[in-house]
Amino acid sequence: MADKYEQVLELAKRRGFIWNSFELYGGTAGFYDYGPLGAMLKRRVENIWRDIFVINEGYYEIESPTIGIEDVFIASGHVGGFSDPLTECQKCNEAFRADHLVKDIMDNPDTLGADELTKVLNKNNIKCPECGGKLGNVYEFNLMFKTSIGPGGKRAGYLRPETAQGMFVDFQRLLKFYRDHLPFGATQIGKAYRNEISPRQGVIRLREFTQAEAEIFIDPRDKTHPKFAEVADIVLNLYSQEGQAEGSSEKMSINEAVKKGIIAHEFLAYCLAMTYRFLMRVGVSPDKLRFRQHMKDEMAHYAADCWDAEILSERFGWVEVVGIADRTDYDLKAHAKQSETELTVYVSYDTPKKIERFAVKPDMGILGPMFKGKAGKIANALKALKPEELSADAIELTIDGEQIKIEKNAVTFETVCEEVHGENIIPHVIEPSFGIDRIVYSLLEHSYSEEEAEEEGEEDKTRIVLRLPAEVAPVQAAVLPLLTREELIKPANEIVKMLRKTGILVSFDDSGTIGRRYRRNDEIGTPYSITVDYQTLDDGTVTIRDRDSMKQVRAGMSNIADNIHELIYNGKSFEDAGKKI
Amino acid sequence: MADKYEQVLELAKRRGFIWNSFELYGGTAGFYDYGPLGAMLKRRVENIWRDIFVINEGYYEIESPTIGIEDVFIASGHVGGFSDPLTECQKCNEAFRADHLVKDIMDNPDTLGADELTKVLNKNNIKCPECGGKLGNVYEFNLMFKTSIGPGGKRAGYLRPETAQGMFVDFQRLLKFYRDHLPFGATQIGKAYRNEISPRQGVIRLREFTQAEAEIFIDPRDKTHPKFAEVADIVLNLYSQEGQAEGSSEKMSINEAVKKGIIAHEFLAYCLAMTYRFLMRVGVSPDKLRFRQHMKDEMAHYAADCWDAEILSERFGWVEVVGIADRTDYDLKAHAKQSETELTVYVSYDTPKKIERFAVKPDMGILGPMFKGKAGKIANALKALKPEELSADAIELTIDGEQIKIEKNAVTFETVCEEVHGENIIPHVIEPSFGIDRIVYSLLEHSYSEEEAEEEGEEDKTRIVLRLPAEVAPVQAAVLPLLTREELIKPANEIVKMLRKTGILVSFDDSGTIGRRYRRNDEIGTPYSITVDYQTLDDGTVTIRDRDSMKQVRAGMSNIADNIHELIYNGKSFEDAGKKI
Repeated sequence: MADKYEQVLELAKRRGFIWNSFELYGGTAGFYDYGPLGAMLKRRVENIWRDIFVINEGYYEIESPTIGIEDVFIASGHVGGFSDPLTECQKCNEAFRADHLVKDIMDNPDTLGADELTKVLNKNNIKCPECGGKLGNVYEFNLMFKTSIGPGGKRAGYLRPETAQGMFVDFQRLLKFYRDHLPFGATQIGKAYRNEISPRQGVIRLREFTQAEAEIFIDPRDKTHPKFAEVADIVLNLYSQEGQAEGSSEKMSINEAVKKGIIAHEFLAYCLAMTYRFLMRVGVSPDKLRFRQHMKDEMAHYAADCWDAEILSERFGWVEVVGIADRTDYDLKAHAKQSETELTVYVSYDTPKKIERFAVKPDMGILGPMFKGKAGKIANALKALKPEELSADAIELTIDGEQIKIEKNAVTFETVCEEVHGENIIPHVIEPSFGIDRIVYSLLEHSYSEEEAEEEGEEDKTRIVLRLPAEVAPVQAAVLPLLTREELIKPANEIVKMLRKTGILVSFDDSGTIGRRYRRNDEIGTPYSITVDYQTLDDGTVTIRDRDSMKQVRAGMSNIADNIHELIYNGKSFEDAGKKI
Repeated sequence: MADKYEQVLELAKRRGFIWNSFELYGGTAGFYDYGPLGAMLKRRVENIWRDIFVINEGYYEIESPTIGIEDVFIASGHVGGFSDPLTECQKCNEAFRADHLVKDIMDNPDTLGADELTKVLNKNNIKCPECGGKLGNVYEFNLMFKTSIGPGGKRAGYLRPETAQGMFVDFQRLLKFYRDHLPFGATQIGKAYRNEISPRQGVIRLREFTQAEAEIFIDPRDKTHPKFAEVADIVLNLYSQEGQAEGSSEKMSINEAVKKGIIAHEFLAYCLAMTYRFLMRVGVSPDKLRFRQHMKDEMAHYAADCWDAEILSERFGWVEVVGIADRTDYDLKAHAKQSETELTVYVSYDTPKKIERFAVKPDMGILGPMFKGKAGKIANALKALKPEELSADAIELTIDGEQIKIEKNAVTFETVCEEVHGENIIPHVIEPSFGIDRIVYSLLEHSYSEEEAEEEGEEDKTRIVLRLPAEVAPVQAAVLPLLTREELIKPANEIVKMLRKTGILVSFDDSGTIGRRYRRNDEIGTPYSITVDYQTLDDGTVTIRDRDSMKQVRAGMSNIADNIHELIYNGKSFEDAGKKI
């Protein structure tokens, strides 16, 4: 029997959600197309993300290129370290991830280097899974797609492995945009790339995928969140470091988790809460979601804390769909070093600090007449000297290649006490990073249902239904004239027009029995089907059928657009949409 | 003095619309970032495009990868012919487009091949514009960014030079989705790439850009459009082939243009009308727009007709922003050939056609007993014969390598008359293709205005204002407490919350004089500024200021979200938004 993944993919291909790219030419692993319904579903998911992060949190979206220059990825570490261990069969030339080949033999093979993996392969006499041939030495294969900008191959370009670097590179511009105030954030929804060695997990492991990322720059001295109280009571399914040691997750309020020190701080916890709200709103099953903390040895060395949102899939088990990390000042420091540019924010102290400072005061009354035009340069050189350099009997300076001797009496120095009002700091970065494609697939799997259903006008008792939230369903309303007759088609077309005017995506369908048409719409998740019949001509009412309950109400045609809009976006209950039939 | 382009770019960089990518590392020609306001502006433009093409025309959007495999671009002709003539300086190694270097010497240098251009360069003694060095021989440089899919460099990948090929490659899936009925269309908004030799035109010539394309598959025998009457009276500024010969464009209704044969047919004309409506809605100046027909020698050999929408820019002159072409069956034929797959649609005739067909009828009563198990194969071989092969006295066949002689009496043949109900045809493709980045830049240029303005609380008499349509302005409303006092900030924050709830992008600004804040918002095109003052605390009203007229009204705070929504999206006039002050 087909497993859920096969069932979902069969539907997805047949009805136009997702299919293999380049099918016409035999396809290529790791690339999928979103068809008409899939692209719309994906876009609705992205727009809900925007509503939460951009509109409501105020983290403006930016758009930087998908091609990046080498400096960016040297700084980010991707040129040096973004790789998987590769081994090729000497006989059939097929390539494999070496760590995948030994995963049944040992724990954590991803911690091994190429040489160690070669030894493990040899010692265990592991052969090519395809043809049984001998496997070659393991080497690190960089996962960035590489290209060349302009002619002559002089300038390397890489397809970005994440959207995040765009925000880091733009730090100075963003800081100015937000008028030098922390915290601020920027987001990006766009393509990212990973040249997988040999992807074999369908839609779960793509070579080209869509990320939605936020980089939120915060004051490292204050990781509270001003709106924390609003989310404090949200209960999450937490699979903490401790929980993983014991093999059990635990439901806990955000507030409690921060208080107990399980989640590092309020700001990170707030991001977990936003993630939870987003995933619930797009339609992930609450019982198939958990937040897993990175174990100490799996976390990046610079990270203060890191959690993955994981979604349960029947075939793939727990799949990471979101990563939420406190990356501290790692990224800004790396770009500051590579670009030789200071990437800091000036922050004011609440109360000024008193600081002792060593001050040199050249006596211009002596230096001026003595050195004339050079006196200014000499004074500056003196100011830069340290106490021990000034304590000698005579001070020797080199100015424009000339040795100059300064008498001690031409300069005084002392320790002064100053009030300092602030300092330049490197912000810390909180990064929630979403894998949109995996989320879209999860929605399809979680909302997919095959059930027994009896309905008038349809003989097939099995109905397939995608129980997607109305807000994310690609087609939002179907308009169905009961019969293919001019007198019914005309008002049906009017309804289509009214709905489209308010931005609702409508399908018009007049072929087949009404029961068949309901089923066609159930299968793609259309929440509401509007049927025009002969009563419509008499009293200007239509029937609205609810996808999930299969119940029907009769409602007026003239305000149908408002009615459907309220049902989809304002939480109007179906019972209030019209008169029960 | 700075020209308009410089003025617009200065504002765009300073306020966060557009800036050079990778500035931190010195930038790279042909790449620009959209900052917080630019990305939002761009997204709003894209969403209006979707409203027109996807929601209202029903051409569903799809999403195919930006990386394509080689077969796709062999079929499309990009591997073979997507190139520019390149010459490199032998001294400084700088690369140039050879046709650009000779454009002042001759007309239409783009029609010359590499060898011819080399001759023109040599004959005219043209040197490197940068250093005066000798230029090398011209060769064709392919403009696709090339990469490699998977390890070992075994499989070439290209960054797509247009989104269009995604729709062609998916033709069979799309045909099924639209249940085998013509016309149907699919659209795509996404990144496309062009590895320009040496881009020197700022935001106008990008190496990575965004296209919005529709591929509409129509019946070649019927190029009328069912909704033509709705657009027939729209008057466009047409710069036809004839007009170009005379150097003058002409205003003409769509209907007249089709009747006179200036625009090839209704369907193409309808696409011009949609394009016009889109460009007007996003805010292009009507007097800076024309539709230019491709000249016969500039049109692709397969195209039936082709028009560019061109927008006037102060620095760049008339810039192509949209191309609208009837590409006939060229693309589907090319992919059918490359993939060895039939890409056709079965279309029914209105009335069945009578067709004469030659029919062979083997007499199984004779063949059966004579050839036993082989009789079926022999019958099939006989059916495949042509009239002249059957007219011989005896028929010789080779079946499974065996020579077989059939007597004439074992087979009869005749010409039969059959009714045929339809046939497989290759649809024609109408392609409107939009360059989103150029359109976004045009909006900035057309809406940019520096004017003298006196307003209370602001001393600077010059105001910069972006007169963007409210629907595309990135920030839709600014909320401004008159003073930075708790009692005013609180209701201001409530208003922010109410507006955000309805999806409106709001900025909160409490720093500086109110006049200064108005100017800041004028500069980024915020259509409405809402000010909270002490009267708000008394009577629950706020002031709304209109960006363009600088007029103010007083309106209630409780329904402010609806009020602003109506102003932006439903064409409510500002006078009706409250009581005139």
